[in-house]
Amino acid sequence: MSQTKILTENRSIQAVIKNVRSRGQTIGLVPTMGSLHAGHLSLVEESNKRCEITVVTIFVNPLQFNEENDLRNYPRDLAADVSILDQLSVDYVFAPSPEELYPPGYSLSVDVGPLSKILEGRFRPGHFSGVATVLLKLFHLIPADTAFFGFKDYQQLKVVQQVVKDTNLPIKIVGCPTVREEDGLAKSSRNQLLSPTERQRAKCIYESLQEAQKMVDDGEYDAKRIMQSMRRHIHQATGKVDYVALVNPDTLTPENDLTKNTLALIAVRLGDVRLIDNRLIKVGNG
Amino acid sequence: MSQTKILTENRSIQAVIKNVRSRGQTIGLVPTMGSLHAGHLSLVEESNKRCEITVVTIFVNPLQFNEENDLRNYPRDLAADVSILDQLSVDYVFAPSPEELYPPGYSLSVDVGPLSKILEGRFRPGHFSGVATVLLKLFHLIPADTAFFGFKDYQQLKVVQQVVKDTNLPIKIVGCPTVREEDGLAKSSRNQLLSPTERQRAKCIYESLQEAQKMVDDGEYDAKRIMQSMRRHIHQATGKVDYVALVNPDTLTPENDLTKNTLALIAVRLGDVRLIDNRLIKVGNG
Repeated sequence: MSQTKILTENRSIQAVIKNVRSRGQTIGLVPTMGSLHAGHLSLVEESNKRCEITVVTIFVNPLQFNEENDLRNYPRDLAADVSILDQLSVDYVFAPSPEELYPPGYSLSVDVGPLSKILEGRFRPGHFSGVATVLLKLFHLIPADTAFFGFKDYQQLKVVQQVVKDTNLPIKIVGCPTVREEDGLAKSSRNQLLSPTERQRAKCIYESLQEAQKMVDDGEYDAKRIMQSMRRHIHQATGKVDYVALVNPDTLTPENDLTKNTLALIAVRLGDVRLIDNRLIKVGNG
Repeated sequence: MSQTKILTENRSIQAVIKNVRSRGQTIGLVPTMGSLHAGHLSLVEESNKRCEITVVTIFVNPLQFNEENDLRNYPRDLAADVSILDQLSVDYVFAPSPEELYPPGYSLSVDVGPLSKILEGRFRPGHFSGVATVLLKLFHLIPADTAFFGFKDYQQLKVVQQVVKDTNLPIKIVGCPTVREEDGLAKSSRNQLLSPTERQRAKCIYESLQEAQKMVDDGEYDAKRIMQSMRRHIHQATGKVDYVALVNPDTLTPENDLTKNTLALIAVRLGDVRLIDNRLIKVGNG
């Protein structure tokens, strides 16, 4: 017996949310592109814990895809997603069509500035503009108290925080820990696109992040040498490195010497599949 | 005894509006750059008529000025503005500093697309991006039911409508008729920057709009000939024409033959002062 209500039209979700608001209930929003995995579900659980009503959006947003193949191949399975969300007692799923969010004549875009041009932004031009634009729309359609995002897409989380701060949106953004497979591979909807061999090799991403921590633990603080070692590890597994970076976790600007906690970020291609991951590298006591 | 409350901080206006909302009162928003004239006051009166609470914002938005001189010379008189708004029983004035709306690290901007690149957008690059960006912030800080804008800045009104539509903002946008001086010059804060001679000559703008209507009434439907005549009239008054346009009032795309109601738009420089105006040219019975 399904309890989760599925809405596909802007005016339907707006009417529902208006009603929820008028009852004074708090709303948690979990924006996703579907193909839900344990990472998404941890966001839903956090929303269930903190908010009275949880809304999950499922929308493969064309604006944030810079490669047509990636958009075409992105896995979609709404029925399976809804069944999972129903088991978690999610109140509402908003799953609009591209035409519902971008009707003919649509023309607006949001530029988030320098933060959106580095790292992922450099390799995926327009990606964060697409993310910011669709989230602005979703935040307007579903004026939640809190929205939940995974640390796995760390730069996205920072971009969302910048959008909220710069536009004075009255919403709280909560980041949640990355959920991993047993061998450490970060959960991602794109993992299912990997061949068995590629899947086996993909653990090199997490291993290289762990290697960075180990080098620091062993007294290596030179970013260049640590990144070299990470790259080498990826290459050994026949992965193609888009970037490896050691950055300040707040500003995402590069660190040359690791004198305090530093974020290691990595983007790798295995065959046609592009995967990203990151972890905080702990330096000394802080 | 002043009743109008003046707020200058984001968190103050947010707290006030949250309170108003919790009482279930409707909110009307009149965004201005101050130097209030009868045009602004007609917007305030419309808001007073339609909404229980009226908020006027006064902010000379640096993002929407493409010329430094224009920003520097733009007239400012907060004390006079507040005194006028107090007489109209405006509930709240929000008058933030530039640093309050654009603190260090601010980096977001909104691109509204093609509509923002033509006419005013062509002569004032970045202008409508600045308008859209600040309005998005103001709409978030002051989630009003209705916001009021003058027809004088007709393209701005269309841009605002596009922002609201494209971002699914739950706010109603109301356009209000242009208020004019006795000789027809549209009320504008920039009028006070005109020398007495320039002020005398400035009536050529309205005259040229009236001339367009007269030509149509006399059976001239060729846009090119009508615009030529309008330009000639401005030149005779020593005005410099930035543009004269006859466009579809909905799309702002040019009309070659006036077969239905058409919007005449004009932008003129008199000395250092740039003025814009427009009027609907009625064709036949509709």
